[in-house]
Amino acid sequence: MRTFFHANDLGDLGQALQEARQVKADRYAYQHLGKNKTLLMIFFNNSLRTRLSTQKAAMNLGMNVIVLDVNAGAWKLETERGVIMDGDKSEHLLEAIPVMGSYCDIIAVRSFAGLADREFDYAETIVHQFVEHSGRPVVAMETATVHPLQAFADLITIEEHRQAAVRPKVVLTWAPHCRALPQAVPNSFAEWMNAADVDFVITHPEGYELDPRFVGPARVEYDQCKALEGADFVYAKNWSCPGVTRPADYGQILSKDMSWTIDAEHMSWTNDGHFMHCLPVRRGLIVTDDVIESPRSLVIPEAANREISAQVVLKRVLEAL
Amino acid sequence: MRTFFHANDLGDLGQALQEARQVKADRYAYQHLGKNKTLLMIFFNNSLRTRLSTQKAAMNLGMNVIVLDVNAGAWKLETERGVIMDGDKSEHLLEAIPVMGSYCDIIAVRSFAGLADREFDYAETIVHQFVEHSGRPVVAMETATVHPLQAFADLITIEEHRQAAVRPKVVLTWAPHCRALPQAVPNSFAEWMNAADVDFVITHPEGYELDPRFVGPARVEYDQCKALEGADFVYAKNWSCPGVTRPADYGQILSKDMSWTIDAEHMSWTNDGHFMHCLPVRRGLIVTDDVIESPRSLVIPEAANREISAQVVLKRVLEAL
Amino acid sequence: MRTFFHANDLGDLGQALQEARQVKADRYAYQHLGKNKTLLMIFFNNSLRTRLSTQKAAMNLGMNVIVLDVNAGAWKLETERGVIMDGDKSEHLLEAIPVMGSYCDIIAVRSFAGLADREFDYAETIVHQFVEHSGRPVVAMETATVHPLQAFADLITIEEHRQAAVRPKVVLTWAPHCRALPQAVPNSFAEWMNAADVDFVITHPEGYELDPRFVGPARVEYDQCKALEGADFVYAKNWSCPGVTRPADYGQILSKDMSWTIDAEHMSWTNDGHFMHCLPVRRGLIVTDDVIESPRSLVIPEAANREISAQVVLKRVLEAL
Repeated sequence: MRTFFHANDLGDLGQALQEARQVKADRYAYQHLGKNKTLLMIFFNNSLRTRLSTQKAAMNLGMNVIVLDVNAGAWKLETERGVIMDGDKSEHLLEAIPVMGSYCDIIAVRSFAGLADREFDYAETIVHQFVEHSGRPVVAMETATVHPLQAFADLITIEEHRQAAVRPKVVLTWAPHCRALPQAVPNSFAEWMNAADVDFVITHPEGYELDPRFVGPARVEYDQCKALEGADFVYAKNWSCPGVTRPADYGQILSKDMSWTIDAEHMSWTNDGHFMHCLPVRRGLIVTDDVIESPRSLVIPEAANREISAQVVLKRVLEAL
Repeated sequence: MRTFFHANDLGDLGQALQEARQVKADRYAYQHLGKNKTLLMIFFNNSLRTRLSTQKAAMNLGMNVIVLDVNAGAWKLETERGVIMDGDKSEHLLEAIPVMGSYCDIIAVRSFAGLADREFDYAETIVHQFVEHSGRPVVAMETATVHPLQAFADLITIEEHRQAAVRPKVVLTWAPHCRALPQAVPNSFAEWMNAADVDFVITHPEGYELDPRFVGPARVEYDQCKALEGADFVYAKNWSCPGVTRPADYGQILSKDMSWTIDAEHMSWTNDGHFMHCLPVRRGLIVTDDVIESPRSLVIPEAANREISAQVVLKRVLEAL
Repeated sequence: MRTFFHANDLGDLGQALQEARQVKADRYAYQHLGKNKTLLMIFFNNSLRTRLSTQKAAMNLGMNVIVLDVNAGAWKLETERGVIMDGDKSEHLLEAIPVMGSYCDIIAVRSFAGLADREFDYAETIVHQFVEHSGRPVVAMETATVHPLQAFADLITIEEHRQAAVRPKVVLTWAPHCRALPQAVPNSFAEWMNAADVDFVITHPEGYELDPRFVGPARVEYDQCKALEGADFVYAKNWSCPGVTRPADYGQILSKDMSWTIDAEHMSWTNDGHFMHCLPVRRGLIVTDDVIESPRSLVIPEAANREISAQVVLKRVLEAL
């Protein structure tokens, strides 16, 4: 595996889930793979879970880890050719990226959507430069449009908590938030649920339609109540307008409708469903205290599985070096 | 050992000091204990000595180390329930803490006193949340009211420099400073000296009385000259008002009396005493250049022993995992 | 080797280059040297290449690494004695440096020229304090006046790309820049080229004369065209006025003459020369896109060799511990 952005980068998901179980059963069994291999983790944005879990996963594998925080303000990269670089951009990415690649074996990158320019964000301009110029395998630690380490951890968590015999109903539901957030998490969650053996429904207010590439064959239901009916897993998440129907609305907050907040009543419509969220979560907006603290909440096991998803991915990349 | 906040967490101090000598004699002899164990060091405040010495101690033990700097401004944690989190606090500690716990085996936390609310500080609200919700052993790297890794290193240093046959006189003396400082260092020093086999005296201007829980059976002498008479060890430190006698004064600077600065005349009252300070120290306020640079100054060996105290503590925690 | 600042710290350069080849051929062959040894990397200034390559080199050698970012604003060190430290400087370097030394085996320091006071910069006041007070070997990761890890990597790169039988002509050429930059890179490059077996020429506008200690026996040619004639290697770099002829001009920008920018025409005067630069580079000012992207550009291999130069240096220091 040379890149990790999408569900199909892992090949057969059933096999990947099997590998996740093995890794979780003995996470220190693969240290020969990482010996004298270096993971460079590059953060253009803040991180708590991703930073800790990916670093832990790499160390489980016996790797060396270097963490680089790129303060976007301090180190602006020029991306255009033919420019006289006499402004605030002190380095061109055509130098910076191959140089970073020369000091490591695998690169992991976090670079969020700017939410100002849909075309730029959805072209994945930044991370594609890493793929093209670093000379190294590249793992997404949330890009402008995808967050596959999260979606894989979500899938592992669903597998661990589903009833064996029944195809579970999984509902991705939009919920209100005070700030404009990227679509990377819902995009990847949709993509991975479509690739998994689940009954998948997406619900959100009109105008919040996700990009068709990610929605795929999923059922979209604008009535949240109907969508949640009989759900085994409720995956709540806010996202700003993806700009699919009205490009001008890209990155905007179209609704703060608090009737979408997941509370006990919402959960009562489900099949004694589990509550899921990728964290960090704003209580009172996305979900109420009682729901997130209930025995049906999976937010902590879900976060803990970030270590497992990262370790399976890094293991695959190491095996292919 | 599941938590390290107080002297009695170590049990018999004589045995702990014996262990410190063994560790110092061969600090790489215990690497089997730390293999595939991860220390997460969380800093809510700046650190030089604590960061370096604790990281070094963990690596001596063969551990993996992850350092997390929590910029208090960037990542404010909500601590209340029932709140709509639409302000600047993007995560609730009830999620953040168990998640951090899930990626490590031991958590070390630094979280200073805010000095605004005595009750909040002395209840150790922040670190107790880590103890309660992280699911991991918690080691204090200076909390609102204690700094036990420092006090243990101080005790090790005193043991190394005392006359074998004589019970040493140890004096904790307040000294002036330009900023309001927490009471964590004098609190822990008092607690540890009370638990050790020394003749312990505390001296400070009136109004600076430390919390009775830490003063314990120590002798308090308001006349600095009398207190220092015959001292074998002079431990200088500034602290702001602990608010014991007048709660309204908590965290305030009540005095900048430069006659309390430790100079050669002060040291002449002692029994050729050693000078100690936890560092960083403001020269000219706490102590004069000649005293801190004299052969009787122990500030550098004291700092070097921070690696030893941290290693004994982490070793004990690892042994109890 | 106890310090690494100058070319002659390495002794015979031919032998050092031989060692570089061995290290590059098998960079993990020396891990016994670094076992239970700790490198402390202290940055008073930002870093990309130096941080990554030096950390990688130390890990190749099996060392533990601690990285300390000293935000100059947050942690100002007092350097004078006899001062009442009631201002913004919270620690004296006479304490800070030996303490840092006590937690590691080797110290690497980056501390740029302030460009305000020539005497202070050229006396290497900061790093000499580390040499004097840390008790540890000190490796320069760019100081006020030298950047020897860069110059050694440059020499390795030249050795790898020169014609075996011919003594290569190497030209260090000034080029324009929008900000005032230190002289550390050109100083060290000059010093190392003088010590190597090459025909070395320096070219720059009048007023930009480098310090005679670094120029040494090198030929200085003010006509860039003449200087570049027949060059095998063109090493472009901006520097601010070294203040040799007019001390008052120290650190100033005397020229932004864009005719000095290395473009295809400049390269046409050379002997099909290689283009070199230490990076980061401002395209359009120092060099044009086509030259830096041409097959004759060595900027990426040069940066990759930073790992090799750092590893040879750390290996030598470890061997001498």
